[in-house]
Amino acid sequence: MDFFNECYLNGIGVGVGDPQMMTLKAVNAIRNSDVICLPRKDKEQCMAYKIARESVPEIDEKEICCFEFEMTKDRDKLDKIHQNIYDTVRGFIDDKKIVSFLTIGDPTVYSTFSYIAKRAKTDGFEVNIINGITSFCACAASLGISLCDLDDELHIIPDVSKLKESLKLPGTKVLMKCARHIEYIKECLWKYEKEGKIEVYAVSDCGSEDEKRFYGTKDLPHEGKYMMTIIIKDRTLL
Amino acid sequence: MDFFNECYLNGIGVGVGDPQMMTLKAVNAIRNSDVICLPRKDKEQCMAYKIARESVPEIDEKEICCFEFEMTKDRDKLDKIHQNIYDTVRGFIDDKKIVSFLTIGDPTVYSTFSYIAKRAKTDGFEVNIINGITSFCACAASLGISLCDLDDELHIIPDVSKLKESLKLPGTKVLMKCARHIEYIKECLWKYEKEGKIEVYAVSDCGSEDEKRFYGTKDLPHEGKYMMTIIIKDRTLL
Repeated sequence: MDFFNECYLNGIGVGVGDPQMMTLKAVNAIRNSDVICLPRKDKEQCMAYKIARESVPEIDEKEICCFEFEMTKDRDKLDKIHQNIYDTVRGFIDDKKIVSFLTIGDPTVYSTFSYIAKRAKTDGFEVNIINGITSFCACAASLGISLCDLDDELHIIPDVSKLKESLKLPGTKVLMKCARHIEYIKECLWKYEKEGKIEVYAVSDCGSEDEKRFYGTKDLPHEGKYMMTIIIKDRTLL
Repeated sequence: MDFFNECYLNGIGVGVGDPQMMTLKAVNAIRNSDVICLPRKDKEQCMAYKIARESVPEIDEKEICCFEFEMTKDRDKLDKIHQNIYDTVRGFIDDKKIVSFLTIGDPTVYSTFSYIAKRAKTDGFEVNIINGITSFCACAASLGISLCDLDDELHIIPDVSKLKESLKLPGTKVLMKCARHIEYIKECLWKYEKEGKIEVYAVSDCGSEDEKRFYGTKDLPHEGKYMMTIIIKDRTLL
């Protein structure tokens, strides 16, 4: 695979929980890495690492670099966090080490890696993105449903503050990172569901041993989980 | 893997072109299948088959079942097509054969498999969906860009007839199946791009030898390709 010769920085998606859902490319890229970067203080607490280790035990022979960072929406703080991570990564690249950043899901969808990649590209380094299965696809598969058919639109909504607006969009809506607002979400969804306009599904901890599936708004838990994805299918299109 | 004991019908996503982007689970499921169903008249013309064969040469030892069907939006015609396919699949299941349907991309995103799965579930059969990398994730990775960060919404738009409305949505827009309307799309996009409101990217034949990447509306080809995906990033969020 030619990219191993040229590319010192890889962003690798490991999917959401089932180690078998890693791609062949992700497995090979981890095997060919010198350094594995993880978005957690401790590898034993890092889900991406635990997923990867199941399918690629050789990961434990690699140099592991853990980054602890605050979850924040403050742009200045984020900038500083990303710059610090990049400075370390840059050090590895300068030492001609192949560095791979593991991300849950896919590196192109809400991942910290994209900020590191931007900085690396600005410095003239080539960056290799290796896809993983996104949470919304994995959740739909676990539920045994399709996300979208024919001309259905698919809308991924990570911020539920404008949920009432989002629910008016045609097609399927996926709510991510919905832990903190679960009661508000249930209230909004029930209004449409009781009128037969939508079908509601959710999965928490998809692909892991703790996976739970929920069918209908009334079935949703009272306490949201960070790793919960809600899928809202538009019944008016059926 | 326990599903092989219970599940006679698998929908397997093989990604969009690079055989290395198949998941370990997809590879194993193909190896454990008795019959492989393909959405083409001839396996040699079937991209899903060609992708799978690269990573799982054992596919050629399996019974291959090719389905030829017309691309149509007529619901009655579609119903009939899907029923015919299902009748054949049902025959294999009744013979206690493990049947796997290959789909390009992911089986939960615009795939024919979902119609077959619905029928099988109605008949009381369990169905196993094995995810693949979607075209929009693969295209973003190939371009080296993220699809969405932080609170960016992500909108997948398969029908461009309401493109002017769709372009007003906040966040990233992805246009799929846009071959026939390429000139209209270019006209709509240029209006926003020249005002600096959006960034336009596209990939055709992603992951294959013929892959082409396009940067900016003016770079888009005059003739669209069926396997072309356009990614529109919202610059007003940067």
